[in-house]
Amino acid sequence: MMANDAKPDVKTVQVLRDTANRLRIHSIRATCASGSGQLTSCCSAAEVVSVLFFHTMKYKQTDPEHPDNDRFILSRGHAAPILYAAWVEVGDISESDLLNLRKLHSDLERHPTPRLPFVDVATGSLGQGLGTACGMAYTGKYLDKASHRVFCLMGDGESSEGSVWEAFAFASHYNLDNLVAVFDVNRLGQSGPAPLEHGADIYQNCCEAFGWNTYLVDGHDVEALCQAFWQASQVKNKPTAIVAKTFKGRGIPNIEDAENWHGKPVPKERADAIVKLIESQIQTNENLIPKSPVEDSPQISITDIKMTSPPAYKVGDKIATQKTYGLALAKLGRANERVIVLSGDTMNSTFSEIFRKEHPERFIECIIAEQNMVSVALGCATRGRTIAFAGAFAAFFTRAFDQLRMGAISQANINLIGSHCGVSTGEDGVSQMALEDLAMFRSTPNCTVFYPSDAISTEHAIYLAANTKGMCFIRTSQPETAVIYTPQENFEIGQAKVVRHGVNDKVTVIGAGVTLHEALEAADHLSQQGISVRVIDPFTIKPLDAATIISSAKATGGRVITVEDHYREGGIGEAVCAAVSREPDILVHQLAVSGVPQRGKTSELLDMFGISTRHIIAAVTLTLMK
Amino acid sequence: MMANDAKPDVKTVQVLRDTANRLRIHSIRATCASGSGQLTSCCSAAEVVSVLFFHTMKYKQTDPEHPDNDRFILSRGHAAPILYAAWVEVGDISESDLLNLRKLHSDLERHPTPRLPFVDVATGSLGQGLGTACGMAYTGKYLDKASHRVFCLMGDGESSEGSVWEAFAFASHYNLDNLVAVFDVNRLGQSGPAPLEHGADIYQNCCEAFGWNTYLVDGHDVEALCQAFWQASQVKNKPTAIVAKTFKGRGIPNIEDAENWHGKPVPKERADAIVKLIESQIQTNENLIPKSPVEDSPQISITDIKMTSPPAYKVGDKIATQKTYGLALAKLGRANERVIVLSGDTMNSTFSEIFRKEHPERFIECIIAEQNMVSVALGCATRGRTIAFAGAFAAFFTRAFDQLRMGAISQANINLIGSHCGVSTGEDGVSQMALEDLAMFRSTPNCTVFYPSDAISTEHAIYLAANTKGMCFIRTSQPETAVIYTPQENFEIGQAKVVRHGVNDKVTVIGAGVTLHEALEAADHLSQQGISVRVIDPFTIKPLDAATIISSAKATGGRVITVEDHYREGGIGEAVCAAVSREPDILVHQLAVSGVPQRGKTSELLDMFGISTRHIIAAVTLTLMK
Repeated sequence: MMANDAKPDVKTVQVLRDTANRLRIHSIRATCASGSGQLTSCCSAAEVVSVLFFHTMKYKQTDPEHPDNDRFILSRGHAAPILYAAWVEVGDISESDLLNLRKLHSDLERHPTPRLPFVDVATGSLGQGLGTACGMAYTGKYLDKASHRVFCLMGDGESSEGSVWEAFAFASHYNLDNLVAVFDVNRLGQSGPAPLEHGADIYQNCCEAFGWNTYLVDGHDVEALCQAFWQASQVKNKPTAIVAKTFKGRGIPNIEDAENWHGKPVPKERADAIVKLIESQIQTNENLIPKSPVEDSPQISITDIKMTSPPAYKVGDKIATQKTYGLALAKLGRANERVIVLSGDTMNSTFSEIFRKEHPERFIECIIAEQNMVSVALGCATRGRTIAFAGAFAAFFTRAFDQLRMGAISQANINLIGSHCGVSTGEDGVSQMALEDLAMFRSTPNCTVFYPSDAISTEHAIYLAANTKGMCFIRTSQPETAVIYTPQENFEIGQAKVVRHGVNDKVTVIGAGVTLHEALEAADHLSQQGISVRVIDPFTIKPLDAATIISSAKATGGRVITVEDHYREGGIGEAVCAAVSREPDILVHQLAVSGVPQRGKTSELLDMFGISTRHIIAAVTLTLMK
Repeated sequence: MMANDAKPDVKTVQVLRDTANRLRIHSIRATCASGSGQLTSCCSAAEVVSVLFFHTMKYKQTDPEHPDNDRFILSRGHAAPILYAAWVEVGDISESDLLNLRKLHSDLERHPTPRLPFVDVATGSLGQGLGTACGMAYTGKYLDKASHRVFCLMGDGESSEGSVWEAFAFASHYNLDNLVAVFDVNRLGQSGPAPLEHGADIYQNCCEAFGWNTYLVDGHDVEALCQAFWQASQVKNKPTAIVAKTFKGRGIPNIEDAENWHGKPVPKERADAIVKLIESQIQTNENLIPKSPVEDSPQISITDIKMTSPPAYKVGDKIATQKTYGLALAKLGRANERVIVLSGDTMNSTFSEIFRKEHPERFIECIIAEQNMVSVALGCATRGRTIAFAGAFAAFFTRAFDQLRMGAISQANINLIGSHCGVSTGEDGVSQMALEDLAMFRSTPNCTVFYPSDAISTEHAIYLAANTKGMCFIRTSQPETAVIYTPQENFEIGQAKVVRHGVNDKVTVIGAGVTLHEALEAADHLSQQGISVRVIDPFTIKPLDAATIISSAKATGGRVITVEDHYREGGIGEAVCAAVSREPDILVHQLAVSGVPQRGKTSELLDMFGISTRHIIAAVTLTLMK
């Protein structure tokens, strides 16, 4: 059996070669039909895909989403036609569907997305596939302790993306011997030769320096590929990189290894002749049956996680929401064993170390590589295998904005926790302060944005996030603030809390996190002056509870003040302005941070940047003078 | 002279050792006075900093910003106290200033920022220094053809950031032999040991695999450091990495090489004894004088660039704004020889190849590594040496959001051009469409956001950006759209154009890029129905011309419709809502993209996502029914 895997018989070799050529033909036809598409990148990878899908990988042909299947990630997403072609050969896509490639309403997008059952994560922004593959391999090896393996096909050009090397470092650090990366070194990028051209040995050296097992092979030699993949399966405690030297456009006369064919189909008038030429090389008419997987993934459930006891805080207790996060996660980890936590060398300042202490086997230290941390989380969450929480200073999620963007396209079900938000971060300095994170996460489709203001609401946010499909972001703060809700308080996504109100409220003030507490203090002061102010905690910034805001605004003479520890653009103020934009007679006054701040004490900075109690009082007074 | 540089005399060696210890003492005192700070990371780098500042680097002591000085970048920004300590020793900072470290209104921030004359770029988000160093070295070698060199001090922990390896690839590809990176391998990260601990040889292997010349040295041995830096200066066509094995907290008993001291000063009660101990090792009381630089940078001017001829387009011509970008840049390049263009393997789709053809010596191909491209641009623009334009698909600037964020803190003067914005990108697919870029760039402080709608305004945007300090972003589109302005039209930042108006306008419609053209078409249709509509082109989204929008809104019964090829959050609609939020009787109806789109024809997608002519007409009709 093993010998057979390593060295297939003559007939199997021929069928694999023929399959590769059929994949080429499908790719030619599909890209011709759509008038565009990355045909040449498909042709360089045809033998690799043939060997993987019909010799090496183990999976259920009719159940592409089965948890025990080997995983395949096409990191170089623009070669999508060859992936679709493979599933035509497997039998899951019809040839006529393939010819509708890139037509509106076809799920066969220009780049793969998980709208297709055999795609786990969207690709198309380069250099992200290997990080998600790491998450899948980590989950398989350490959480599921299952047999399935993970294969990631990458382009040479995309190895310029640093995220690739973050993933390389992660995979070797965690000895992911169930992970195989294939570099399809076809020499040519989009606008010209890739910097290393055919220097496949340089790729190999880099992979080795990063701690990987490596093989350098002729990527058009199916026997060499079968052997390399088999050898990879025998290596313990190291991931394997197979550096496959190939030619872009392989098999197409005058296009093979030529520049300026990136992203182009063959000329229509040449298509039939080229297909005929490739057909003439096909010697068999057989389909190989993929091997079946070992079914050893555990049965799990990741839904309907209940809070086993109410939050253990009393009104008036003082605790930072970012510390509550760590405590709540540890508790959540007791409620469901598939809860995992990822951190980027910040567990002692974001408090995820509390989770690690209690559930060390479910804590993934991703070191200082935020892009890869998000990609690993995306990978861990595929096929519903985990409930992943990735924590970092909120500012450093900007590093991973492209991964988050692709995560949204991937319909990812992951949770991100950002600490150290706003100028209230204080002494740690401006580079550590998140002041654009709400703009970033609000503009991410289907992302729920929580901004809890005390320990009780933070704990609820964690549980709601765990139970909510799609991406969730929870914004937490460094200063210790008072608990304002009782343990019995109920929280829902999109439901604001009116935390202070009276019959004669003159102004609605909307704050969140530290600024909610500033607003409450301002309300106390103002009430001594006989001015009654309504105070709202939005709880989620997206979706925003427009109904509560509008009704409060109407009850307070249309006067609304927003106050936020975030830049003016894209934050709470603009969200509120948009929410009331079709209502007559509501005026919104925004208090927010302007310009690049500096470091200092929290109270000094809140005041310096116009979002402290004093500024809220002044804004209320000004508003009432109008 | 050279022998002396390589092997300093006994006395110099001792003074360098003593200087390192004085740097330690300054760092201890400064962090004690402020009650926090990364003392232990300062101590591991003391000898490296001593040798660089007082033996290797050439610079004018009293003019830290001189263009001929060698550059020093503290990539590991949290070790700022040792940088400040070095400038105390140089004589540019007083000891008393140093003791105010981290107090409000001190420019000696927790992490270095260019508010200080000897800091070129802000650091504090890890892994970004080497990319900016690459930009400085590229500029020195190829644009200035000058003698100055660039030294970048990095931590071991930050080498986990992929951006570091993007920079490594760039530097070796461009043979930057005037660049030296020092890895301070002190074994410990923030929350525990760095993954490779003291495996300095592994760092060395990685650097070599990426094509660098390398030396492995004892980072506390000043003689070894002097020799390694001298050797680096002799190597042609390769950048050099010096892997310095060090101990975190070096020289402080019980803290050296111990965990849990990251970011902490020594206990106050131990400070005096520790200082005394270190003082007891100091044998001399001399200051070395830094070597003077060779003054061979050319005199240049980057201000007041005039358009030598009006734009060469006629009203009605059809051309994509992203193509105009390439043509306008080539023209701009004729007006000033310091204009440079950076691209990430997309010059043939973002049209920067037009610039390259005309000015090949000023075009920098940064391959597929957007983070590094932005960092290189930041580096090229330091000390006012170039006017840098970096172009990419706008969506892929999300990859560099953290670099842009740090660029804002750096007061960077760079220009970013984003192509393929919105669903109008069409067939290229959703992963290539920028739908969150306005949210990202609007939330970046001091960033001017241009969104030109035809060729004439695009050309003006390029010239305005070239003449505007701070960051500029220009959003361009793929579809061919008609020229609507005459070559004589004048454009200003923050000045909208009322492109269609009549005495009896009922509604103000605000569009930009493709949606401005949809709005104009809608206005034509509506005018046939007897409904007169005012149409506004904001030209810059930030700053937004609130005055024109408000006066137009008031002239059209307070009815405003915004229509944009961007997600609802953080884009034009919210900017307009915020701009009118304190005006009574103005209602805004937002048309924007919701949810993750798919690929298709531009016209199909504009319609499917509710931002086409038909939807504008419907919104106007609906608005008038109220």
